[in-house]
Amino acid sequence: MSALSRRVFLGSAAATAAGVATPGSAAAHPAGNKPADDRADVVVIGAGLAGLTTARELSRAGRSVLVLEARDRVGGRILGHRLGTGDTTELGAEFIGPTQDRIAALAAELDVGTYRTYDTGDYVYYRDGQRTRYSASGPLGPIPPDPTGAAEAGVAIQLLNEHASQVPVDAPWQAGNAEEWDSQTFHTWIQQHTQTEGGRFLLHVATKAIFSAEPRDLSLLYVLAYIARAGNENQPGNIERLVSTTGGAQMYRFIGGSQLVPERMAAELGDRVQLDAPVRRIVQVPDGVRVVSDAGTVTARRVVVAVPPPLAARITYDPPMPAARDQLTQRFPMGSVTKVVATYPEPFWRADGLAGQAVSDTGPVQVTFDNTPHDGAPGALMGFIEADHARALDDADVATIRREALHNFATYFGPRALEPTDFVLSRWDNDVWSRGCPVAFGPPGLLLGYGPAIRQPVGRIHWAGTETSTYWTGYLDGAVRSGHRAAREVLTAL
Amino acid sequence: MSALSRRVFLGSAAATAAGVATPGSAAAHPAGNKPADDRADVVVIGAGLAGLTTARELSRAGRSVLVLEARDRVGGRILGHRLGTGDTTELGAEFIGPTQDRIAALAAELDVGTYRTYDTGDYVYYRDGQRTRYSASGPLGPIPPDPTGAAEAGVAIQLLNEHASQVPVDAPWQAGNAEEWDSQTFHTWIQQHTQTEGGRFLLHVATKAIFSAEPRDLSLLYVLAYIARAGNENQPGNIERLVSTTGGAQMYRFIGGSQLVPERMAAELGDRVQLDAPVRRIVQVPDGVRVVSDAGTVTARRVVVAVPPPLAARITYDPPMPAARDQLTQRFPMGSVTKVVATYPEPFWRADGLAGQAVSDTGPVQVTFDNTPHDGAPGALMGFIEADHARALDDADVATIRREALHNFATYFGPRALEPTDFVLSRWDNDVWSRGCPVAFGPPGLLLGYGPAIRQPVGRIHWAGTETSTYWTGYLDGAVRSGHRAAREVLTAL
Repeated sequence: MSALSRRVFLGSAAATAAGVATPGSAAAHPAGNKPADDRADVVVIGAGLAGLTTARELSRAGRSVLVLEARDRVGGRILGHRLGTGDTTELGAEFIGPTQDRIAALAAELDVGTYRTYDTGDYVYYRDGQRTRYSASGPLGPIPPDPTGAAEAGVAIQLLNEHASQVPVDAPWQAGNAEEWDSQTFHTWIQQHTQTEGGRFLLHVATKAIFSAEPRDLSLLYVLAYIARAGNENQPGNIERLVSTTGGAQMYRFIGGSQLVPERMAAELGDRVQLDAPVRRIVQVPDGVRVVSDAGTVTARRVVVAVPPPLAARITYDPPMPAARDQLTQRFPMGSVTKVVATYPEPFWRADGLAGQAVSDTGPVQVTFDNTPHDGAPGALMGFIEADHARALDDADVATIRREALHNFATYFGPRALEPTDFVLSRWDNDVWSRGCPVAFGPPGLLLGYGPAIRQPVGRIHWAGTETSTYWTGYLDGAVRSGHRAAREVLTAL
Repeated sequence: MSALSRRVFLGSAAATAAGVATPGSAAAHPAGNKPADDRADVVVIGAGLAGLTTARELSRAGRSVLVLEARDRVGGRILGHRLGTGDTTELGAEFIGPTQDRIAALAAELDVGTYRTYDTGDYVYYRDGQRTRYSASGPLGPIPPDPTGAAEAGVAIQLLNEHASQVPVDAPWQAGNAEEWDSQTFHTWIQQHTQTEGGRFLLHVATKAIFSAEPRDLSLLYVLAYIARAGNENQPGNIERLVSTTGGAQMYRFIGGSQLVPERMAAELGDRVQLDAPVRRIVQVPDGVRVVSDAGTVTARRVVVAVPPPLAARITYDPPMPAARDQLTQRFPMGSVTKVVATYPEPFWRADGLAGQAVSDTGPVQVTFDNTPHDGAPGALMGFIEADHARALDDADVATIRREALHNFATYFGPRALEPTDFVLSRWDNDVWSRGCPVAFGPPGLLLGYGPAIRQPVGRIHWAGTETSTYWTGYLDGAVRSGHRAAREVLTAL
């Protein structure tokens, strides 16, 4: 393989020195940079966490691999951003929590440390124009103390957890009530199990924080499967683990930023990671596959497609996909989200006894976190703009989003939030190589009609990506798990 | 334009002589057949009814057009099939009915005649192992006389019609109850408005017959919009018109087959229809568009994309689509359907006083029609395999489908159905240039989240196709209407 003719990943140190790419910067592949036909045991499409994990496992098993990545960076839905201070903040997936053992083990192997997400002091609950401080260490945990809704939301959450415990994580469509649950939206279920506007609001805002989708977009069965998968082989999933910081999926962060995990894997793989190589076509031939990208054609014995399902649909397959796989990818859409980070000389809210976490009914930013780096400076507030709010602003200019987001931050944390030293954002819906985040979700009927096609290999084509995982779907841990599973499949088949 | 270097449509007579193509026969584009850059005022992508209508209107207005079609035939979801007798039967869209004025006018201009769909005699209702004959000219119309369900279904239908009357056909998301209606599945609505299994069955089977989707797959608002659109500017839509033969959307057929309409349009356009030319990329440049297909590149001032939304998503756009349009196409999937036609020396069921129409709870074929050609022979029974039943058989061999379909036909019409002279089928889910039929449908949240993006032009790119129509979405008439509207848009913009 001729590394000279290609743009390859140059390793973590070089990437850090050059600055981390920002969304939308993916450049066209340089004209003329078309290597001759190449060969590998396995081609992996997508240098996100799932694809890189797959390639790493295969490489460690002695197989030759080539990772083809459409962007000019690795990481996929993980995206680091270098601040003016030289610190890194995250504009994509960033958290790790209890039971997420696979990402934890991987990070440890790669010598990427973790630290506790800042979770000291009060949370802010902002609703109907009233700002309330509350402690997330009370009996309700992170559920805001809505005077009418908190108790109701708590009861609903327990019922959802009970239902989720009846959903097989590897085959949700086999749940005893699968037909009933996949025939209704989560919105319908919420309406039928709550009476108060407060209770409904709390369930809606939690849904948007988890899926970046409205409750109406989601199948109840898909939500229950997602809850069931928020655990591991020993500890069944539950909602608390999805929504909590301490004790939950947002408990820890990575020292230096989550992007170190894919960057260090890519550095290990060296010139086996090819950037600027969007794959356009996969041809299955009798003894292998030919993978055609903008950077040339590679022949392999197996291929692992590790991109989100709606983007996998945009590759041309020859022979064509079976109907189940094709129609699956017509109805497994990405959530809608913009992530914003404002930085300040210091995390001023901490001195006020605030954790930097807010839950609000006033958009566009309705959920926030303290995103300050490990060394405590600069102070960083992170906010999610999700679902309908994200869609409404997908065409807005950055100045508008900045103004509205900072207004939200100021409402929750005080007027100092209006004057950040830096304001950055990632607009995932507009990013051509994600087209939404954090994850593809199931509308009603997806799992009953097409569930098995999510992971079922098609000839020599295997599927990875957090959507295919049976635990922690939608999270870093799910991506790593999917890479392990895809690599096992391929090794068995080779 | 060099017609010699291309495979172009040769006109109706030639196509008839050569036999009409069957699904799956689309051949790869011959190597080396790559014309140099070409030019037209407008490129139309897709030679289905919408695309051809667009091109015809533009051409009649004096504009130069080029239609790029991926298949080796025109017609899209319209598909004629030449029987051994020399007669033609239809394996795709075939019906026309009252208020479908645009397709009627077009057929008349093209000198394609119509005739009444055979609708004389009794219908068959088969449920719980009981076969019942009934008259569709009774007070319930085509609703089967289910002893417990018919009255209930009738009440539900009236309520749906009332709701539909409140839905603006051009902006369903502006209905007063849009949020409530787009937040639930049609399944949920049926459950809440029926008590009997019979009533539920009738509404479910009607849903599948209309959308080739399960009620769980569909947004209630989308169903109501579809009902509202089953009419024209003077006659509001209603369910009766969707489901009825006499008086409804299945009232008439085309003498010689519905494929004559696109074939005659293509013959008019001559070498302005390019077959075997799947479009891969659309590049918007300052003064026009470049359309890149497997048959070469064409430069134009405007482009009209007249393919189903999930397939439009598979074209690469440069610059990329706005998020709303992109995410729309991630969640606007095609229905699932296989259409079967069995032929016999004569339509033997007619002598038994049967219309050839059945409604059944026993699959795979649960809805049938008499598909006999205009001259009365050969006798043809047509059956729909829809939604879950279609999905279950998408990978089955033809022998299995034939056996199961003929068993259904025999149950409804007697044992002579077991010995057809011919048995043909079209497996739309497996067809790479449709990937489902009859139409893309809206799951919950589609219209509220993305409705305007269905028709909104993006720069120099316009959208046609029956999905974009404000009347008779999903029908031939909607396709023609969309072509008229797209042509008007382009003429205004040019």
